[in-house]
Amino acid sequence: MVELMLERLEELFPEMVELRRLLHAEPELSFQEVKTPNFIGNYLERLGVEVKRGVGGRGIVGYIRGDLPGKTVALRADFDALPIEEETGLPFASKQPGVMHACGHDGHTATLLVLAKVLMEYKSQLRGTVVLIHQFAEELAPGGAIEMIKAGCLNEVDAIFGTHLWSTMPLGQIGYRQGPIMAAADRFEITIHGRGGHGASPHETVDSIAVAASVVTQIQHIVSRNIDPLKSAVVTIGSFHAGGAFNVIADSAKLVGTVRTFDQNVQELIIARLEEVTNGICLAMGATYSITYEKGYPAVVNDSQETNRFIETASHILGKENVFEMEPVMGGEDFAYYLQHVPGTFFFTGAGNEEEGIVYPHHHPKFNFDEKAMLIAAKCLGKIAIAFLNNVEEK
Amino acid sequence: MVELMLERLEELFPEMVELRRLLHAEPELSFQEVKTPNFIGNYLERLGVEVKRGVGGRGIVGYIRGDLPGKTVALRADFDALPIEEETGLPFASKQPGVMHACGHDGHTATLLVLAKVLMEYKSQLRGTVVLIHQFAEELAPGGAIEMIKAGCLNEVDAIFGTHLWSTMPLGQIGYRQGPIMAAADRFEITIHGRGGHGASPHETVDSIAVAASVVTQIQHIVSRNIDPLKSAVVTIGSFHAGGAFNVIADSAKLVGTVRTFDQNVQELIIARLEEVTNGICLAMGATYSITYEKGYPAVVNDSQETNRFIETASHILGKENVFEMEPVMGGEDFAYYLQHVPGTFFFTGAGNEEEGIVYPHHHPKFNFDEKAMLIAAKCLGKIAIAFLNNVEEK
Amino acid sequence: MVELMLERLEELFPEMVELRRLLHAEPELSFQEVKTPNFIGNYLERLGVEVKRGVGGRGIVGYIRGDLPGKTVALRADFDALPIEEETGLPFASKQPGVMHACGHDGHTATLLVLAKVLMEYKSQLRGTVVLIHQFAEELAPGGAIEMIKAGCLNEVDAIFGTHLWSTMPLGQIGYRQGPIMAAADRFEITIHGRGGHGASPHETVDSIAVAASVVTQIQHIVSRNIDPLKSAVVTIGSFHAGGAFNVIADSAKLVGTVRTFDQNVQELIIARLEEVTNGICLAMGATYSITYEKGYPAVVNDSQETNRFIETASHILGKENVFEMEPVMGGEDFAYYLQHVPGTFFFTGAGNEEEGIVYPHHHPKFNFDEKAMLIAAKCLGKIAIAFLNNVEEK
Amino acid sequence: MVELMLERLEELFPEMVELRRLLHAEPELSFQEVKTPNFIGNYLERLGVEVKRGVGGRGIVGYIRGDLPGKTVALRADFDALPIEEETGLPFASKQPGVMHACGHDGHTATLLVLAKVLMEYKSQLRGTVVLIHQFAEELAPGGAIEMIKAGCLNEVDAIFGTHLWSTMPLGQIGYRQGPIMAAADRFEITIHGRGGHGASPHETVDSIAVAASVVTQIQHIVSRNIDPLKSAVVTIGSFHAGGAFNVIADSAKLVGTVRTFDQNVQELIIARLEEVTNGICLAMGATYSITYEKGYPAVVNDSQETNRFIETASHILGKENVFEMEPVMGGEDFAYYLQHVPGTFFFTGAGNEEEGIVYPHHHPKFNFDEKAMLIAAKCLGKIAIAFLNNVEEK
Repeated sequence: MVELMLERLEELFPEMVELRRLLHAEPELSFQEVKTPNFIGNYLERLGVEVKRGVGGRGIVGYIRGDLPGKTVALRADFDALPIEEETGLPFASKQPGVMHACGHDGHTATLLVLAKVLMEYKSQLRGTVVLIHQFAEELAPGGAIEMIKAGCLNEVDAIFGTHLWSTMPLGQIGYRQGPIMAAADRFEITIHGRGGHGASPHETVDSIAVAASVVTQIQHIVSRNIDPLKSAVVTIGSFHAGGAFNVIADSAKLVGTVRTFDQNVQELIIARLEEVTNGICLAMGATYSITYEKGYPAVVNDSQETNRFIETASHILGKENVFEMEPVMGGEDFAYYLQHVPGTFFFTGAGNEEEGIVYPHHHPKFNFDEKAMLIAAKCLGKIAIAFLNNVEEK
Repeated sequence: MVELMLERLEELFPEMVELRRLLHAEPELSFQEVKTPNFIGNYLERLGVEVKRGVGGRGIVGYIRGDLPGKTVALRADFDALPIEEETGLPFASKQPGVMHACGHDGHTATLLVLAKVLMEYKSQLRGTVVLIHQFAEELAPGGAIEMIKAGCLNEVDAIFGTHLWSTMPLGQIGYRQGPIMAAADRFEITIHGRGGHGASPHETVDSIAVAASVVTQIQHIVSRNIDPLKSAVVTIGSFHAGGAFNVIADSAKLVGTVRTFDQNVQELIIARLEEVTNGICLAMGATYSITYEKGYPAVVNDSQETNRFIETASHILGKENVFEMEPVMGGEDFAYYLQHVPGTFFFTGAGNEEEGIVYPHHHPKFNFDEKAMLIAAKCLGKIAIAFLNNVEEK
Repeated sequence: MVELMLERLEELFPEMVELRRLLHAEPELSFQEVKTPNFIGNYLERLGVEVKRGVGGRGIVGYIRGDLPGKTVALRADFDALPIEEETGLPFASKQPGVMHACGHDGHTATLLVLAKVLMEYKSQLRGTVVLIHQFAEELAPGGAIEMIKAGCLNEVDAIFGTHLWSTMPLGQIGYRQGPIMAAADRFEITIHGRGGHGASPHETVDSIAVAASVVTQIQHIVSRNIDPLKSAVVTIGSFHAGGAFNVIADSAKLVGTVRTFDQNVQELIIARLEEVTNGICLAMGATYSITYEKGYPAVVNDSQETNRFIETASHILGKENVFEMEPVMGGEDFAYYLQHVPGTFFFTGAGNEEEGIVYPHHHPKFNFDEKAMLIAAKCLGKIAIAFLNNVEEK
Repeated sequence: MVELMLERLEELFPEMVELRRLLHAEPELSFQEVKTPNFIGNYLERLGVEVKRGVGGRGIVGYIRGDLPGKTVALRADFDALPIEEETGLPFASKQPGVMHACGHDGHTATLLVLAKVLMEYKSQLRGTVVLIHQFAEELAPGGAIEMIKAGCLNEVDAIFGTHLWSTMPLGQIGYRQGPIMAAADRFEITIHGRGGHGASPHETVDSIAVAASVVTQIQHIVSRNIDPLKSAVVTIGSFHAGGAFNVIADSAKLVGTVRTFDQNVQELIIARLEEVTNGICLAMGATYSITYEKGYPAVVNDSQETNRFIETASHILGKENVFEMEPVMGGEDFAYYLQHVPGTFFFTGAGNEEEGIVYPHHHPKFNFDEKAMLIAAKCLGKIAIAFLNNVEEK
């Protein structure tokens, strides 16, 4: 059955491209998606898929229930776009000024829709259920996943799989990773409250720039001394702003930064240490502070068993030599939340093509991906879904 | 003669007030003075004073040549105003929007003009010459003094005296100081050039915020370790700006600050050390930098002998108990340049009056001074000038 | 054949224990081994093994050439002891005052000797050659491995395996790891040369303590900002000594520390950065410095294929559940050098036994190991050697 | 009378030299003085001076009561020696191994003894009382002054004068200063308690060296940011000791240092700030600390009126041009305590003589002073004492 499905996907590749281009021309921002979920819902209903709309807000969930009994596997595609003015010059470029599918979610959606079509065609041979999770708002914390899960999109789901088309990986390659594949990406702000005054009279002031500079320097010890050297962590101060005049001691200083981790204990340690360091330096220098810490998406942590299963199925499709273990990516993805509830794996589908000038990174105004990557993604998702569902029998 | 002169000044106090209010209503910014020097020149010429106009640009120099032979003493008053919107509500408030005599230079000018009138009246008994230096542009570096000196205003001058009406010192007091009485006030900018990049990949960047924070911290050692503890010095970073996004490592960081010193060797040491520290930290961390250092006015360094002479004459006028040694003021004054050429002293004339609500500091939109301070200033300047000129004979 | 060999090892366990205790009682320090290699050489010769003595100095290499043609596999055991006064109170405790087998090398040697005996017994069925590398001086850099390799101990060797009995891992467990399993452990010294002087006159000095403290603080940026967060690195200052009197500024300050890495590029980067940071801070503060960096053993980097082969064979012996991937160990091992020449793997053999009070860490005066671990080690080494040699045929 | 006294002192100069050399040969350490006070007491009693022995422990106080009524003035000389092995090679060098009058206290004593002799000769013309304070233990905190004062040596004393022979000031010069002339010199110890551990596992430790280095760096802000730039302060860390092994993270680190100030408010601020900084840094980094602060002698603060009186009398003796205002000395002197109770002044008597090779600083094994300085010191002390006592009448 699987081999036939894969062939059928190839036949339907032109439709995948067409769908992707339709979506690309009409991008919608995170938490503002209206036409896109409507389009998805209509398409799936036309296929005969059982559709729930407005799941967790703007999500669409489709249920393809096979004629044979079995487990339930979810496949996820996100469908929101970014506040970027497109500069690709493509014939199907965005018609919405300042909004662009600059991360490939149009491709994710087209991939999953056409895969749904094929799965429906093979429904009679399908064991168990495939749940199609079309997610809104992946680009903007807190993201759509968390609400869709609350709304029940993972009910009875036994495993989940998802992918990201990746323009900086060559077409034809698949990247997997056991355990953490994408980092937790958090944001923090520290405001140091000193006491301003004349630049010539530091003793009558608390110099917030001197305090904040000390905080920046002291924070380096978190990574260098407090984190297990075998674990990864980044603490970056991305902006430091204080003071207006050369001869006035600044009343306050503002630091804004990011923390990247793959391990929740490391993340919690850093949150605690950031406050301890700031508090200590402020006490040392007579300042006060306020600190806010916003957790972004947690790390995407792949399940070991499902990743192994995926490696095997992907290797059948692309050859072992094109399926490789990748370094973790320090960016965030709210696919993380699904994996906190059910096992599964998130993988990267190479979509770059230097010869065709598809070289721009994600979130770039000239971002594009090689559409053939959608076919590979569809095959990999389809095959792993079937492999999972058939697994019970095989044993 | 001196006692009669002092009495005559009292008689003319109403004219001093009138002149001050006329000037106050028509303030002119530094390097833009036209009407004020014209007014001064005309007034002095009407008195019969020999006047040079346009000295060093916009300065007025008057020469009162006594009938008796003797030395030459200069008295200086500055006449420029500030870019401040007056909020005093005084009947004679500024008629120029956004321009205000908020530092008392109107008072300095009125004081010297009326003193000139009296000196002219006693010309027959005057030994030697009194040079009246009406200076433009004290408020804005490089100031008017330097050009007036180049233009010869100190030619044949043996000593110089000047004062500042001081609203934060009570009326009736005089502050003097041997040696440095006002600091050199300089400005510097340091730009750290790192290499920006993604906040999650510090190893691919040179983090300019981390570098600049280290520079700020390391700079503290200049005052704490490199400066003679018996000497005064301030190095303040007044502004620190770098970065725009929480998750992007900033490409560059800009520090702007001020240095205050009373001693040229200390100043030169700090200039050298600022560059050494910045250079060293940048080398330590792989960054580069650019640095600019603008010297402001040098320290005002009073002559010991002339200050002693002044203490004696001022004590006669106000009583010993009202003439006290003051702490140096960390701000700058281009009277400093005159004292680099001839001996003399610069003193502060108390002009505050809490009961009358004259409590605002200089450069404040509600700044004012007690006009009776002008009379005290005129007496002190007149008496020290005569004392200096008579000195040869007295010995 | 292998199963029979493993059974035979069990029969010979008492001899293994006896050999170990003999060796334990007569420990010899690194680079001072005389009796131990002599004992090993004699034992092997009595077995009929072809023996080379004095390899690379004090090493013994034995060759067991199977009757069947095949590849060559090396097994390595180190035999030096430590300058520690034994406090175990064991009946077979060290007879040498201040010298002790406190790291288990006695066990490694006994294990390999008895394994040699069994291999000799099965020589007729052995495909290819087993090379027995009895190495001197593992405990003291530069170690014995490097010289033994120069002397040819790896000539014609196709793969190498070795183990460490590990008292902090429970008996019955085996720890393996793909890639780096033990860190490169280096040592550095930085001396800051300031200019001493009276504590009351810092401006006449260069305060070496202030400089060295700044170096310590700045060094933190190496790990926090310069190292890829996905890689491991440690830079520790273990000692800081400067100054003698409370009121004298110290002339010089000495820092001694260690660097741990798993990746040569990271190691080289840190070496360069340590000097850049020290140089930069010294320039910033007017000091000079000297720095020495001694590379210890490089990281032990296991070969992926041979590690996989080992996992399989070890799992047969102990059950999959007792063979687990371990975190890398930050300490050093000169087994690293062998792996720079031929593929292979180094693994840890659990030898702790809480119930029997075998809980002390390596290098502790009360260190001991559960002797049954030797049997496990012998089985694992024997089986992986045979598996490697038989591999050609199996394919 | 005064002129005759000064002449008489000249006549007795040889005795002064003889006394000084006797004392020099038999130095006694602070708080161990036995023979010296005995010698002084006997000498004074032989003169007929009323003597109290054992004042405050080992001090000698003599009372020369004039025949005329008047005020009471004290003159002080200290008599202890230092734990230094003399290397002068002088014929009258120390006979006590390892003990030396290396600070000139032998000269102070001889000066005051001979002055006492002369004052006794002029007793009939003396108005009021001269109190001779021969003080023990000036070199070693807490010093002898504090106990002598408790024991009443200042009872009824109206003013006090003292001097230090000073080998780094040329013979013939006198140095005075209004206000603070010698600094308060304190000692502090800070111990940082971290948590030691393996150098490869910083995350399991609290790195006391990193903490202490941060404390050293942060302490710089006290002088650079917290102290009025017009005031003097030094905070020096003289020793930093931590750790023993390159690969072990140190459990604790010890800092020892000194604070120098001229102003009690500044001193108290620094004491508070040292603890705040240490506490803050420790909190920032998870360490704890202990801190001890021992105040040394307070600043020697000369009385303005008595210093002016001294300037006048000294100028009569040496000429105005040889009596100059000196920079404060950062070292400590327990003469400070006397000045906390009664007005007076402490001055420096030049005793260096480059031509005669008298160039070594105080506390140097080759220290010496030009003995003619004793005569100058005696004249200055004698004249100021008489001037003070006669003052009432003069007015």
